[in-house]
Amino acid sequence: MDPGKHKAVVLLSGGLDSATVLAMAMERGFDCHCISFDYGQRHKTELDAADRVAGALGAAGHVTVPVGLDRLGGSALTADIDVPKDRDEARMGDDIPVTYVPARNTVFLALALAYAETVGAQDIFVGANAIDYSGYPDCRPDYLDAFEKVANLATKAGAEGSHFTLHAPLIHMSKADIVTEGTRLGVDYGITRSCYDPTPDGAACGRCDSCILRKSGFKAAGVSDPTRYHD
Amino acid sequence: MDPGKHKAVVLLSGGLDSATVLAMAMERGFDCHCISFDYGQRHKTELDAADRVAGALGAAGHVTVPVGLDRLGGSALTADIDVPKDRDEARMGDDIPVTYVPARNTVFLALALAYAETVGAQDIFVGANAIDYSGYPDCRPDYLDAFEKVANLATKAGAEGSHFTLHAPLIHMSKADIVTEGTRLGVDYGITRSCYDPTPDGAACGRCDSCILRKSGFKAAGVSDPTRYHD
Repeated sequence: MDPGKHKAVVLLSGGLDSATVLAMAMERGFDCHCISFDYGQRHKTELDAADRVAGALGAAGHVTVPVGLDRLGGSALTADIDVPKDRDEARMGDDIPVTYVPARNTVFLALALAYAETVGAQDIFVGANAIDYSGYPDCRPDYLDAFEKVANLATKAGAEGSHFTLHAPLIHMSKADIVTEGTRLGVDYGITRSCYDPTPDGAACGRCDSCILRKSGFKAAGVSDPTRYHD
Repeated sequence: MDPGKHKAVVLLSGGLDSATVLAMAMERGFDCHCISFDYGQRHKTELDAADRVAGALGAAGHVTVPVGLDRLGGSALTADIDVPKDRDEARMGDDIPVTYVPARNTVFLALALAYAETVGAQDIFVGANAIDYSGYPDCRPDYLDAFEKVANLATKAGAEGSHFTLHAPLIHMSKADIVTEGTRLGVDYGITRSCYDPTPDGAACGRCDSCILRKSGFKAAGVSDPTRYHD
């Protein structure tokens, strides 16, 4: 860890997007402290992936915080509801799917803010994306701006004159742009996991929204997809 | 549960303030769903108190959500840092004490929002107070307004036209006003717990900020204090 470097907190899910965000934050010279969440998701394989990604990209630290979103229910990702398959990519943004976890990004950003304040970081990086996304309301730019205001009013650091900045470098990038940028930065996508409904041995289902977006991103970028799909 | 009633989520810590807020929300006719947090606090006795309070006041439901704030460190309430004692009440608001848990209210409000969206509530009640408080930045009215904006941008319910309202009915009340109002509403303060550093058998220390504010609130209200103090 270089004491002259600015610290940043990076939300790391273990998926393609957040791995790319970490690589981008590292390239910008931040000392990156990654945070992941064990929130009762069915796809816990992503937590191991987050650990591998943090290590491979040289993060300064990585913490996994348990948070009982499954106690609240209401989502196919945490409750006993089927993950939808084979949806039409062009129409994914039209409505909010059952994989939506109520207020998940707000909970995750709040915990990232707590971590930032604890480690003394004023920059938070999140992989929110408003283009190739599944229609989640808490990925929109207006939402992220509003959260940044909360961060600056919420905290001891903010009250004492620091300014938190919320970075969403993927917000206007297509999945293909993201794959291209990550590939340039040397991200090994073979160690990332995006699937909402992996098989017990960790293979991606190939048919959930997340797999569909991932596959077509690699295809459009002209990059070979290292993902191990079940189908 | 009356199907004609509007639902509300009430943040319930088991302390004096949130018990009063629950009584106020019940009086206003809401069907109250309470949420508490197991965040690695030293004073877990408050979780049992929250259960008792929810039951005694007739809440429709009560959920306790685990959230690993102790993994992040940084506060006397969750880490191995001494809770300050015998501070001067008049100066408590001058600076932010070591009992401050980074971004705690943001994390708790985010989880309350997730719960509200899950149960179908559009009203969230929180016991934040800007008068007799310990100097926490995330109890200020500006902060709460900013969070309400986030709530309305963050959620599926907000995107579909519902409007979340964040109620902080204690915000401009003194501790004595709170005790007076709760007493009028029949709150049994004997079952609430406010102390940051209780003895192993559950008695309040009598000397932390929370105990000092609680004691002087009862005194100023002219109401007999049912708290069992260690000193």
